[in-house]
Amino acid sequence: MARITFRPAGITVDVLVNTTLLDAARRAGIEIDAPCGGKGTCGNCTVRVVSGQINCESLGVLTQEEIDQGFVPTCRTSIHDSDVVVEVPDQVGRFGGQFSDDDGLTLIDATLLPTPEDCRPLTEKINIFVSPPQKADGLSDLDRLTRALQQRLGKEDIIVPLAVIRHLADALRAEDGNVTATLSVDTPVGKMRSCRVTAIEAKDSTDGHYGLAIDVGTTTVAVQLVDLSNMNVLSTCTDYNGQLTCGLDVISRIDYARRPDRREELRNRVLRTINRLIEQLARQSRISHMEISSAAASGNTTMIHLLLGLNPEYIRLEPYTPTLLNVPFFTASEIGIAINTAAPVMISPAVGSYVGGDITAGILCTDISNDSEDVCLFMDIGTNGEVVLGNGEFLLTCACSAGPAFEGGGIKCGMRAADGAIEKVEVDPATGLATCQTIGHVRPRGVCGSGMISLLAQLLETGWIDAAGKLKRSEPSEAIQIDGRQAAYILVTARESATQRAIVIDEKDIENIIRAKAALYAACALMLKHVGMEFYDLRKVYIAGGFGRFLDLDAAIAIGLIPDLPRGRFHFIGNASLAGSRMALVSGKHRERQYKQARRMTYLELTTDPSYMHEYTAALFLPHTNPDRFYRKDIKK
Amino acid sequence: MARITFRPAGITVDVLVNTTLLDAARRAGIEIDAPCGGKGTCGNCTVRVVSGQINCESLGVLTQEEIDQGFVPTCRTSIHDSDVVVEVPDQVGRFGGQFSDDDGLTLIDATLLPTPEDCRPLTEKINIFVSPPQKADGLSDLDRLTRALQQRLGKEDIIVPLAVIRHLADALRAEDGNVTATLSVDTPVGKMRSCRVTAIEAKDSTDGHYGLAIDVGTTTVAVQLVDLSNMNVLSTCTDYNGQLTCGLDVISRIDYARRPDRREELRNRVLRTINRLIEQLARQSRISHMEISSAAASGNTTMIHLLLGLNPEYIRLEPYTPTLLNVPFFTASEIGIAINTAAPVMISPAVGSYVGGDITAGILCTDISNDSEDVCLFMDIGTNGEVVLGNGEFLLTCACSAGPAFEGGGIKCGMRAADGAIEKVEVDPATGLATCQTIGHVRPRGVCGSGMISLLAQLLETGWIDAAGKLKRSEPSEAIQIDGRQAAYILVTARESATQRAIVIDEKDIENIIRAKAALYAACALMLKHVGMEFYDLRKVYIAGGFGRFLDLDAAIAIGLIPDLPRGRFHFIGNASLAGSRMALVSGKHRERQYKQARRMTYLELTTDPSYMHEYTAALFLPHTNPDRFYRKDIKK
Repeated sequence: MARITFRPAGITVDVLVNTTLLDAARRAGIEIDAPCGGKGTCGNCTVRVVSGQINCESLGVLTQEEIDQGFVPTCRTSIHDSDVVVEVPDQVGRFGGQFSDDDGLTLIDATLLPTPEDCRPLTEKINIFVSPPQKADGLSDLDRLTRALQQRLGKEDIIVPLAVIRHLADALRAEDGNVTATLSVDTPVGKMRSCRVTAIEAKDSTDGHYGLAIDVGTTTVAVQLVDLSNMNVLSTCTDYNGQLTCGLDVISRIDYARRPDRREELRNRVLRTINRLIEQLARQSRISHMEISSAAASGNTTMIHLLLGLNPEYIRLEPYTPTLLNVPFFTASEIGIAINTAAPVMISPAVGSYVGGDITAGILCTDISNDSEDVCLFMDIGTNGEVVLGNGEFLLTCACSAGPAFEGGGIKCGMRAADGAIEKVEVDPATGLATCQTIGHVRPRGVCGSGMISLLAQLLETGWIDAAGKLKRSEPSEAIQIDGRQAAYILVTARESATQRAIVIDEKDIENIIRAKAALYAACALMLKHVGMEFYDLRKVYIAGGFGRFLDLDAAIAIGLIPDLPRGRFHFIGNASLAGSRMALVSGKHRERQYKQARRMTYLELTTDPSYMHEYTAALFLPHTNPDRFYRKDIKK
Repeated sequence: MARITFRPAGITVDVLVNTTLLDAARRAGIEIDAPCGGKGTCGNCTVRVVSGQINCESLGVLTQEEIDQGFVPTCRTSIHDSDVVVEVPDQVGRFGGQFSDDDGLTLIDATLLPTPEDCRPLTEKINIFVSPPQKADGLSDLDRLTRALQQRLGKEDIIVPLAVIRHLADALRAEDGNVTATLSVDTPVGKMRSCRVTAIEAKDSTDGHYGLAIDVGTTTVAVQLVDLSNMNVLSTCTDYNGQLTCGLDVISRIDYARRPDRREELRNRVLRTINRLIEQLARQSRISHMEISSAAASGNTTMIHLLLGLNPEYIRLEPYTPTLLNVPFFTASEIGIAINTAAPVMISPAVGSYVGGDITAGILCTDISNDSEDVCLFMDIGTNGEVVLGNGEFLLTCACSAGPAFEGGGIKCGMRAADGAIEKVEVDPATGLATCQTIGHVRPRGVCGSGMISLLAQLLETGWIDAAGKLKRSEPSEAIQIDGRQAAYILVTARESATQRAIVIDEKDIENIIRAKAALYAACALMLKHVGMEFYDLRKVYIAGGFGRFLDLDAAIAIGLIPDLPRGRFHFIGNASLAGSRMALVSGKHRERQYKQARRMTYLELTTDPSYMHEYTAALFLPHTNPDRFYRKDIKK
């Protein structure tokens, strides 16, 4: 055993010799970001060793200065049999900030939304009368409830879980048998033959019927409370996924999840995020979380595997077969979601290992598979980029790994689109100095994805970066700092920043954005090639993703993130995964449509296709190796 | 808030003002016996207040000496806003001692046991081959498993719980798709239309198929591990029910359970007992508790309500309607039993609030409802006495509260039938001194139920007690201690006792035994009267209960516990609740028989019948007010 103390928290834990510092920190409850998932490649999980014997496998990712000061990457450093004291650098604010929660309702074409006639939630509430107990009639409380429900519903099989039975005796007696039963009647493949009772409440409580839409993103989690009686959105809350410190993208998470205890850790982390958000929603709407009687959740295949506690390893190993694609309706308590324990939880069906339920939910917000022959493109710009191409006849889909740059991850001064995030930048062509606009018009704290796109477009336009994303070294500017072969751009000085630290973008950050946009553009381009079409043939391009509504279209086209098409063909639909989940939650028609579309979608494995690498490399320029694709004179802007 | 310290443990807890000392002790993890369930009537839960302000509601049950020393009943004493220090008297050994675990197999008529043809456990195991994952076939692990099972079973609906899916990916790949599925196919009302998968293991593991029979008694819990492939009993373990410190009989437990937190406490207490026994069984048989794939449990209606976390309050309130009589098959994890989480648990059907599943299981060990016209009587002698009278045409049942005296409870030197328990006594007619025989032939530690019966019979026969149970005062004996109006009988002196404390039976203890036997005898007598029969008309009398096999028949008849019939008509069947649970666990035929018999049984509410009181009072003598009932010359002993 060895003893390790973490400063400044002052927490000491005893661990076995050879435990990594990262595991020891987790044991001590200390949050250390390990964006690469503990592979030792990112150099972000460093701490400074103050005293004691450690064994560090790899210092390659650190600068000499960091090494001299005693910094080590916690994921690659194990503990000898002596006492160790380490200092954890201040990471406060890394993933902080209030989200600007938005229900995104106004973004979606009204004709696609469920109508009152479509309203058929996963559960229904009925008010019934259960006859009072009679002496010596040989009927238990459960017998009387079952008979009353059989009579009312005309169904033989009434299933009542133990969690519901626990409240039965008091509920039946509180108002002399006047009770409200909540019933779960659907399955992913249609109506249940039997009927499952998910709650029994005293009195008529049919007017309080609530459901939850959940988007489990790799970077962020959004949860929305819906009044199921009228399909109104009551409240929306968003936060970073608590798994973020265990890896920024799905591959890093899968890496991290290789050990069963870490799989359990990841499961608990995302559940804590979801359940904290549910608590917020319930508080805002003054209901109890136990009154929420159903949920519909969407996420990519890896996120759903981690949420359910499944081994995600085989998602990235050939032949890329996940444990689940069509997910049965589990109960909230099986999963660990803090709503009514017996509540059914629908999880959106996935198409493949890299096209998940977030996409089958997302395309509910589009008319991509309508009857017309017009071909549409759906792009979900998140940590994973997913693309769907199709019309009433075909639906093709593929995925690429964009990384978290568009959500503010993997960028040193990056942050989520929240108050204080720079979302728009103007660069003075002469001086190279930036003028920034922040969300909430407060002092800047960092840059969000749309801010990065705006900045890059401006720097490119004013000539302060070249097509390869390199900052101009030939002309001096106060905004550009050159340190050997590396250059960085000072967006906000320490004095102007809300955090008293300068907001600086270096060439590595720029590279991250370029890689992300190249991955997405290449995926779209290659998929079109597959069906012998060009970008210009697209009637509509739907852009989904956390930042969708704040995106500056011209800037995005200027850097080559999206194709250069007439602007009217673009439709920003915001967090389509969340909006689609809500539709599936409230509407039987939309649920059926979602399962049908999921079955219709053909998954193309593009990233192992050699021509993908070719397209990707060609897109690693601003806007593209072939600028003709972007400055077409014939397109009316 | 107030602070309370418990000595000698030295544990301090902070509690709200007005918390009872009993609740504070429970919070501190200190076990204090409260046999009456916290009603303040037994005076057993006392502690000595060393310092601090307390508020004691009732000292009526304590002696002046105890009051002078500062003793208070913890259940009726609440805490003021000052710090309190109390001393908990030594209660070690109160419910200690090893049980002599016995599978009781040899006691039951072999023709009643399941034959190999009857073998149909609650789960079945099948070895199947699941095709390996294929690239781009759009099938998840779950899809392939479901298809393989659909083909093999010819059933459409295959339900796989999340807990099983969590192991699926690795199980399917460990041996290239060679897996064993455990399936739950039954419900209390027959075969399921669907099929629920309760486990998936890599390779062919069909030979390891284990089940559990559980008897949840008010005083003791017995658990038995069964090899389901051949119905062999592998091991049996018994222990006191962990709820025992919260009340000795069901009424005290119901009292204790009035608050939801205490209901949860009682649930956890019995689960801890059961799960500890399961751990023992698994260790003895060198299997994992997760390999146990089903369970059948029996207990009286209150015990089952407490095990399931249901409010038992309405069991004792008119019209005495319990929440459950016929219990659905819940899963082990719903209940909290530490075997395979998805394992189905059958709970024996109950007939009424006071005739539970222990009785419907018990009569599986009898031929009481066979085709003959012969009328049989079944007596379950436990903390509750239940009686069944019937034949192939009718089945009547009733219940009475005997108290825990026959299981060693409520008797100051009482103990369970375990090593060191006095089970047989001979009293010297001249001196009144006892010679004792103990279980295991070791030094005596206490008296078990059969020892008490033997002692009373001997004292009665030798004239050292009278028909009212009073010790002889007219003649001096070293064995009789007289203190004012109270007298006590010294069975073993401190020097001879294994605990260095004398084993003494006082007149209150004798009274408890007399009350218990009177309650049982009165119930039998009244039930016979109802159908116009006499004891002598009974062809068979089955005696079930923990001590059944050790009972000295002549002694039991001598004190009037059982009727004076030809000895050959008595059949001791031991723990029939456990044996019946085992039959239901392994045999479909016996399960069906049990549900059928439960429906056939008519419950008589005798204890509210005025003539019951009459019968009871008449039976409060040794052997009976009317000795003619017991000394019939025409009966061949």
